[in-house]
Amino acid sequence: MPDKPDKSKITTYEDLEQQVRNALTTDDLAALHKQIAAQHPANIAAVIDRLNHPQRHQVFALLAPEQATRVLDELSTEATRQLLDDLPAPEIGALLDRLPMDEAAEILTQDVPQRQQELLALMSPVNAGQVRALLHYPLESAGRLMTEKFVQARPEMTAEETLAYLRQVNADVETLTNLYVLNPEGQLVGVVSLRDVVVAPPERRLDEMMNTRLVTVAPETDREEVARLVSHYDYLALPVVTPDRKMLGIIPVDRVIDVLVSESTEDILRFGGMEGGGTIDQPYFTVSLPLVIRRRIGWLLLLFLAETLTGNVLRIFESELERVVALSFFIPLLIGTGGNTGAQTVSTLIRGLALGEIQFRDIWRVVRRELFGGLLLGTVLGIVALVRTLLWGNGIEIALVVALAILAICTWANTIGSLVPLLAYKLKIDPAVVSAPLITTLVDATGLAIYMLIAKIILGL
Amino acid sequence: MPDKPDKSKITTYEDLEQQVRNALTTDDLAALHKQIAAQHPANIAAVIDRLNHPQRHQVFALLAPEQATRVLDELSTEATRQLLDDLPAPEIGALLDRLPMDEAAEILTQDVPQRQQELLALMSPVNAGQVRALLHYPLESAGRLMTEKFVQARPEMTAEETLAYLRQVNADVETLTNLYVLNPEGQLVGVVSLRDVVVAPPERRLDEMMNTRLVTVAPETDREEVARLVSHYDYLALPVVTPDRKMLGIIPVDRVIDVLVSESTEDILRFGGMEGGGTIDQPYFTVSLPLVIRRRIGWLLLLFLAETLTGNVLRIFESELERVVALSFFIPLLIGTGGNTGAQTVSTLIRGLALGEIQFRDIWRVVRRELFGGLLLGTVLGIVALVRTLLWGNGIEIALVVALAILAICTWANTIGSLVPLLAYKLKIDPAVVSAPLITTLVDATGLAIYMLIAKIILGL
Repeated sequence: MPDKPDKSKITTYEDLEQQVRNALTTDDLAALHKQIAAQHPANIAAVIDRLNHPQRHQVFALLAPEQATRVLDELSTEATRQLLDDLPAPEIGALLDRLPMDEAAEILTQDVPQRQQELLALMSPVNAGQVRALLHYPLESAGRLMTEKFVQARPEMTAEETLAYLRQVNADVETLTNLYVLNPEGQLVGVVSLRDVVVAPPERRLDEMMNTRLVTVAPETDREEVARLVSHYDYLALPVVTPDRKMLGIIPVDRVIDVLVSESTEDILRFGGMEGGGTIDQPYFTVSLPLVIRRRIGWLLLLFLAETLTGNVLRIFESELERVVALSFFIPLLIGTGGNTGAQTVSTLIRGLALGEIQFRDIWRVVRRELFGGLLLGTVLGIVALVRTLLWGNGIEIALVVALAILAICTWANTIGSLVPLLAYKLKIDPAVVSAPLITTLVDATGLAIYMLIAKIILGL
Repeated sequence: MPDKPDKSKITTYEDLEQQVRNALTTDDLAALHKQIAAQHPANIAAVIDRLNHPQRHQVFALLAPEQATRVLDELSTEATRQLLDDLPAPEIGALLDRLPMDEAAEILTQDVPQRQQELLALMSPVNAGQVRALLHYPLESAGRLMTEKFVQARPEMTAEETLAYLRQVNADVETLTNLYVLNPEGQLVGVVSLRDVVVAPPERRLDEMMNTRLVTVAPETDREEVARLVSHYDYLALPVVTPDRKMLGIIPVDRVIDVLVSESTEDILRFGGMEGGGTIDQPYFTVSLPLVIRRRIGWLLLLFLAETLTGNVLRIFESELERVVALSFFIPLLIGTGGNTGAQTVSTLIRGLALGEIQFRDIWRVVRRELFGGLLLGTVLGIVALVRTLLWGNGIEIALVVALAILAICTWANTIGSLVPLLAYKLKIDPAVVSAPLITTLVDATGLAIYMLIAKIILGL
């Protein structure tokens, strides 16, 4: 009998976590062995990720070798690092040897970079060689995502021969939805889906039915570009080839989904003002507090120092502020509105650039659009500000100062909110590094200067 | 001969866009017919999306019916709406009839909601009935994503019979990677991959090799949950079943990728302070300026009014500010730091909640963690603030006020930066609605109150 729908599945592994937490002795844990073994590796990994030190190791030790490998493949950076710290060397070697080579390379780069050479030495020489080859490709490139586990065929094979061949190799290839047709030089000449082979007349040759208008990537292609192509063309896998079209591997769609999820995490955390390279997308509870502080304090300090500039702007206008204290009441309102407007624009730009909807060559089209948008928003908010300030009884002159300052600040914030991400993109910096805090801080100092200058002119200070 | 690698492909369609833009007469355009027809539908859609009104229609008119359908499937909301406004009624009916029913339902809901009934009447009664059935499922639910194009089989069929059956129906089913095994009641009892059928001995029955530990979803399941499951288990498709396990359809992985991309867009735009329901993820240049303003002005106005509260806080402390004008210099610094700290925390929470790493039941674990993190960050920044203020020559008392205020504000911002997204999540509001601008504004007023109170006590004002 099949299981109940997913909901119960999902709670099952959360229940399991609770049971593991409640297990006080190693005997209690061992009693859970069967329940653990029955879970999908992704679920076991989720449980281990959420456990603490001794229990992590104890649960992992209960797994059969094959399952342990699949679980390792799914674990977070922090849990992987901890397990590899504890396991004896031969066991680590065996685990890594059983992993797909691209996953082994990922663990060695992302999870335990400082132990890379040491762990490579524990692997079989052939596998270690393959992993070393992968490590030559840039971080976050197609080469790091590809698997060598794809099914190749020759162009002259018939549908019948192909099916017989598949039965014979009994391909342990989970990614068998497409067959990759290579010529004797190992060059990719076409792709044919398993479905087409099954449905075709037995004597039909692969080169009569294969698709030759291929979209491929180079191993150096950025992973974001890979994700964009797969999502654009709705592919289940993307072949990776050398410049002379020699087939290197394929990137299956599930790896692309991982990339999409982790790029989204990166983007939103960066936009929120967090630092972080490749390991920024760790599960919330697995990030240690010292690491959280390290990731946050840099930007906070930098922006803090930048904000002291804003203080300097005010200091310059000290005598004006002393004469009209009411001017200081509007400081939070003005810099707040500027920051909010800027943050909106930056978020739009980050997303447009990530999805490839905006190119650098569109810069003037974008800036014109945002400048005009800022003027419109500033006009609406300026009128509201005028009314609000008059109602507060600050007199028409101050109301005019505030309204004009809002108009100018909105236009300014919108414009630089579009320019800065575009410039970052041009400089090959992730536009999401232009965080909401960064743009807010940028707009604060300049916005105040605009405000005080308008005040000086209109109030004749 | 196969084409060159992807890069040239991608530029090809951008070149095409340029050529279309340069075509001055309809004859010029018609001359491009072959080049357009040779493109992947996703590419033609990308070109049409970026064109302006008359040319959009002219390019679309060049397409053969089948291709026009596939292109329509990929177009942005705004382009779809415009094309459907221009096309004659019978042509619209034919186009919609040729679409997969889930895509037709999506267009009728998302792109032309106000013409839903009118366009349904143009479709064949059978198709219109199917689309109406889909429209009963909630927006953004699994029911809206599923396709009825899956291959079913019976449990007693052998591998050989299955292959013969597939040849016979010559399934025009692009999603044929799995076969869904149904009992005579139409209930899903197992899934078997096409690969397993191909590799199996001819006489092996499907129920001997099918996977019965199935993860399925209900048609009402939220699409984010669907995406989480597919990404967690690395599936290529997810079956949708009724509570009594009757098979309704499957959600193929390419639809899941669309969901992931559009949810990420939603999250980052919302976190940036943009409003927007189902159509927030339109390509940048296809969003009209009035729509941009409508999406932005709501939050800006609300936050603007909230910021006037901040002004009120200052007004309460008017006499203190008049006596020590220097206090106002630190206003931007303090509220800036509070906002930045809060934005960091919110971005972490949004992502942790979206990925299912954090549940509402973790609330105290999260709040304790963030409170403690805020204390640590506040201590570091407080010490820097103390030194900086002393260097500015503001005297030890003001330096102490600023340092303590920073400590308190960081702790406070970090704590409510974790609480508010969790409460939103509990209230079934997208946590990303807790935007950087919103948290900044929240922290501004309360932060200033904290600052002025500390000043009052220490300076004895």
